Amino acid sequence: MKEYKGKKVLVFGGLGFMGVNLCHRLFFDGANLSIFDLNITDTIQKNLKDLNIRAIRGDITNGDECTKAIAEAEIIFNLAGRSGATASMENPFLDLKVNGFGVLNILEAARLHNQKVKIVFPGSRLQFGKVEKLPVAEDHPMRPTSLYGIHKLLGENYHLSYRHFYGLNTCVLRFSNPYGPHLKMKKPEYNVFNYFIDLALQNSVLKVYGDGSQIRDYIFIGDVVDALLAAGISKAANGEVFNVGSGVGTAFIEAAKVIVKVVGKGRIEQISWPKQAQNLETGDYIADITKIKKVLGWEPKYSLTSGIEKTVVWVKQKKDDFYASLEEQS
Amino acid sequence: MKEYKGKKVLVFGGLGFMGVNLCHRLFFDGANLSIFDLNITDTIQKNLKDLNIRAIRGDITNGDECTKAIAEAEIIFNLAGRSGATASMENPFLDLKVNGFGVLNILEAARLHNQKVKIVFPGSRLQFGKVEKLPVAEDHPMRPTSLYGIHKLLGENYHLSYRHFYGLNTCVLRFSNPYGPHLKMKKPEYNVFNYFIDLALQNSVLKVYGDGSQIRDYIFIGDVVDALLAAGISKAANGEVFNVGSGVGTAFIEAAKVIVKVVGKGRIEQISWPKQAQNLETGDYIADITKIKKVLGWEPKYSLTSGIEKTVVWVKQKKDDFYASLEEQS
Repeated sequence: MKEYKGKKVLVFGGLGFMGVNLCHRLFFDGANLSIFDLNITDTIQKNLKDLNIRAIRGDITNGDECTKAIAEAEIIFNLAGRSGATASMENPFLDLKVNGFGVLNILEAARLHNQKVKIVFPGSRLQFGKVEKLPVAEDHPMRPTSLYGIHKLLGENYHLSYRHFYGLNTCVLRFSNPYGPHLKMKKPEYNVFNYFIDLALQNSVLKVYGDGSQIRDYIFIGDVVDALLAAGISKAANGEVFNVGSGVGTAFIEAAKVIVKVVGKGRIEQISWPKQAQNLETGDYIADITKIKKVLGWEPKYSLTSGIEKTVVWVKQKKDDFYASLEEQS
Repeated sequence: MKEYKGKKVLVFGGLGFMGVNLCHRLFFDGANLSIFDLNITDTIQKNLKDLNIRAIRGDITNGDECTKAIAEAEIIFNLAGRSGATASMENPFLDLKVNGFGVLNILEAARLHNQKVKIVFPGSRLQFGKVEKLPVAEDHPMRPTSLYGIHKLLGENYHLSYRHFYGLNTCVLRFSNPYGPHLKMKKPEYNVFNYFIDLALQNSVLKVYGDGSQIRDYIFIGDVVDALLAAGISKAANGEVFNVGSGVGTAFIEAAKVIVKVVGKGRIEQISWPKQAQNLETGDYIADITKIKKVLGWEPKYSLTSGIEKTVVWVKQKKDDFYASLEEQS
């Protein structure tokens, strides 16, 4: 997006799945880019420096590090945090520390030292818990069950509160299920869909729980990045929350079949639901994307098939400089 | 309530406004009572021991202290926490620590060491933020603005999540504006209505912001205690949330007039809104109490006039043993 050329952009959590793809685009759009992440190694820092990208190894639970990082930024993408419902239940206090205190640290730093900065925060469909009505609009009641969903709602409320009381330029995009090009994953449950693509590429078994009829709204990461970038430069987005997805629902098993078909490898096996997974299952979800279309003029460009195709091409092709510079991470 | 006779009841925050009034009743109902509070002094501990009440000086942000305290309890009232919207904005991190981590500590302790215990948690009308429709039912959207409201919602979600995943016997009562007999207040903004009663008794000026037309739902603390006790012994309450108030709306200035009339002293002065207070103002509120009436058979017994009368009588009369034992606190 041409508006980002020369803009001072700071991405917290720039080495996460969403962060990497966003930074990749910002790099090619010519942004003056800073990446803040816990997992930045000396090698990554050096590699990124060669690309004129500032890399900060830092922890959002440390207020001083946040304050130092944000001083010059014009736009912040507040993407750092722990991911996944399962992980949140396994470590409730750490989840609160990172996704609660950490997020609040960034807002407090902005309030005290950089009130004009724009801040974009990613919420999650898991804030809704079990939904009553599809597709899900922004004002649908939120009854998150997992601590991950609860803490994402907490983060959203922080961003809106700092808008309300201090006039900070914050906005929130609640994403459905993103997938697409990604670095090596530490744990499959962070993103089952990406894990399935990896399994298919390895010609392995894709295990689907039960009949796999649960509906999800899978969105290609390129569309996610478009939405983040659109929100980052829009004044109309300030103080607003948007549900973001493809707007199309697909049964999990059908999506798995598309993966196997597009990749041309792998096979599906249906097994019974493990108890923990069943407890975490929140039922069907499709995002109502009327509001973001109207206010930001954003809309998804990828179908499930074209998104998976693009992901597979990406895995097979030679990596460009930006991705190559991060390969050290894994 | 006769069901509490001999029951092992633990009240976190037992020296707070709600806690004192609840413990007072539990003491006279013959409960086997333990009070956990940060502000328990040696004198209070000794005084309470003479009444056969176990007093624990402890901090809910300390997980070990919570674990130790809950071991034997049959019913927990999870009332400890920081109070008030203003205080929460002044100290956001401390508010999260106490009202987030602290509350989670108690639930984790119960999950690991006392899964059968009943836990009652007080939510707040401030979870709703500005409301769209009066009276406010349980499923009204929640858009809290103050950090206090945000963290109360966080605490509610924790209690419901631990019900969902672990089957803990939790329930939540979202209270409107309670008033009534109270120990000396540290800060007037914790409870403006009680502060006004004190001012009137001192024949002082009651300062009302603007035209004082904002509607509140004032509920006498005796009714609040009845609701807490009813929830504590009800199986039907488990996993449920209830809005609790008098169900009657009163303009702030009208309520102030009732205070002056009942007390027979004090006078009202109208001044313009300070900016901070105006930002915190959430608009009109009246609780829809249909659900709690139906499920718990609870209903308020006090009108605004009779509640204020009872408060004034309480201030003037000689204190009973229970209250006298806490006088050391102030």
